[in-house]
Amino acid sequence: MIQLSLIGIGTGNPDHVTLAGVRALQAADRILLPRKGEAKSDLVDLRRLLCRNLLDEAAQSRVVEFDLPRRDGRDDYLGAVDDWHAAIAEVWREQMARHLPRGGRVAMLIWGDPSLYDSSLRIAGRLKGSGRDGDASLEVSVVPGITSLQVLTAEHRIPLNALAEPVQITTGRRLRERGWPEDAASVAVMLDGGGAFQALAPEGLHIWWGAYLGMDKQCLIDGRLAEVGPSIVERRAALRERHGWIMDVYLLARTPLLSRTPPLA
Amino acid sequence: MIQLSLIGIGTGNPDHVTLAGVRALQAADRILLPRKGEAKSDLVDLRRLLCRNLLDEAAQSRVVEFDLPRRDGRDDYLGAVDDWHAAIAEVWREQMARHLPRGGRVAMLIWGDPSLYDSSLRIAGRLKGSGRDGDASLEVSVVPGITSLQVLTAEHRIPLNALAEPVQITTGRRLRERGWPEDAASVAVMLDGGGAFQALAPEGLHIWWGAYLGMDKQCLIDGRLAEVGPSIVERRAALRERHGWIMDVYLLARTPLLSRTPPLA
Ligand SMILES: C[S@@+](CC[C@H](N)C(=O)[O-])C[C@H]1O[C@@H](n2cnc3c(N)ncnc32)[C@H](O)[C@@H]1O
Ligand SMILES: C[S@@+](CC[C@H](N)C(=O)[O-])C[C@H]1O[C@@H](n2cnc3c(N)ncnc32)[C@H](O)[C@@H]1O
Repeated sequence: MIQLSLIGIGTGNPDHVTLAGVRALQAADRILLPRKGEAKSDLVDLRRLLCRNLLDEAAQSRVVEFDLPRRDGRDDYLGAVDDWHAAIAEVWREQMARHLPRGGRVAMLIWGDPSLYDSSLRIAGRLKGSGRDGDASLEVSVVPGITSLQVLTAEHRIPLNALAEPVQITTGRRLRERGWPEDAASVAVMLDGGGAFQALAPEGLHIWWGAYLGMDKQCLIDGRLAEVGPSIVERRAALRERHGWIMDVYLLARTPLLSRTPPLA
Repeated sequence: MIQLSLIGIGTGNPDHVTLAGVRALQAADRILLPRKGEAKSDLVDLRRLLCRNLLDEAAQSRVVEFDLPRRDGRDDYLGAVDDWHAAIAEVWREQMARHLPRGGRVAMLIWGDPSLYDSSLRIAGRLKGSGRDGDASLEVSVVPGITSLQVLTAEHRIPLNALAEPVQITTGRRLRERGWPEDAASVAVMLDGGGAFQALAPEGLHIWWGAYLGMDKQCLIDGRLAEVGPSIVERRAALRERHGWIMDVYLLARTPLLSRTPPLA
């Protein structure tokens, strides 16, 4: 029997890990630490740092690093993701079989919170589904972690929702395709390849943007979209160039989010 | 100068506090702990427990308990909230002036995350806006915390979003008034006075429901809405009767959230 714990670790600030996360990490027999290729090595570094800071000397040897397969870049996005998840599940299975042949507790450090645009639960679901006779069975648990969206709102000191109003969390791709979602007074955008907000008419919209949230190189911009939109696009390109990668997230609202009165609904 | 730190503390499980939360609590000169009336004393108890567990003996005396004004029950909901926030801001101001006349660091323990359907940032904004000459000025910072929604998805071991799809976070009131939000494949509902999902046609919908999340009395139900909807309504009423109060939250989706393929969009 393998007990797999998916531990949300926040998105850059090592102090964003919870006490429950610390305990689950310390209780694990093995910590699987996937490497994701060169460019985003900062993301692997946070995981290494947490293991160094939170595990004692002896426990360091429980950390197992391994390489993830790459997603192929073919046009059929969902098909490519499906194949990629299958390949990752296979690698997880191999690692668990090699390092814990008689079962035990495995921890994986998940960026942000495992519930938000993250595939670990789906990949773990494949492993569960595919247990052959004789395979150790798999039990999954989740330790929640601070999301990038929460760091965004905390650093800007704003709420996610306008007073008593709904909020939509969406992707850059979807914002481009569909525009402003009908029923939401504020919209949070993740997984944006760059400036999807340019697809909206900027009048009357405010934006709160953040990149590398929780990290030393964190960058924040906010203001009227019409005014700051172009500088966000510029700054994003420059930062990406400088660091070799970027992750950013932003919140859009039709109304100043701290105002006392709700937007005209 | 008052430095006010709004610390997200999770929603019942004391281990959901982050290391940053622990540090901010320990660094505070005063911890303001509002009492909210009898029924929800469990919510105040978690705050007391955190202070007891995380502060040393000497620091316990920095905790200041005080009573919050009550919201009046008049029909004009937004007007009543506006007056109520003004009254709370006044009480915060009094407490700060009494306990830190020369300024210092004040911490407040915020249920869940301060960004999500919580008024502390708006109330702090009123204090900031109303500083008269001679008043200590106010600097606000936010420490993110685990939301009830994250405990819901963690305990059910599900993602919040269907693969690459948007998610809407809304209120029970809004779900009743407007029905299913157009652009979302999954919908999270908070602040529901009871069973707002009954306003939807249940066919094809799944629900993951949780009450008292993170607490000993936590209760989870999930399944097809058509099948489990009525038992959720029943169970909610019984639990509320038994404990004198209830807080619950749920996620609805048109598709099994762990499926590999996205819903037909
Ligand atoms: C695959 S999703 C994972 C989200 C993660 N599970 C979370 O809870 O934040 C990656 C997206 O999250 C956002 N993101 C993650 N970390 C970030 C950070 N440190 N700063 C800004 N955005 C971040 C970006 O929108 C990025 O495209
Ligand atoms: C005023 S909002 C505050 C939300 C909080 N800031 C958070 O991050 O979860 C209160 C609503 O949150 C949800 N909630 C908060 N704590 C909960 C708990 N322990 N179990 C279930 N729902 C909870 C319920 O929907 C409740 O009506």
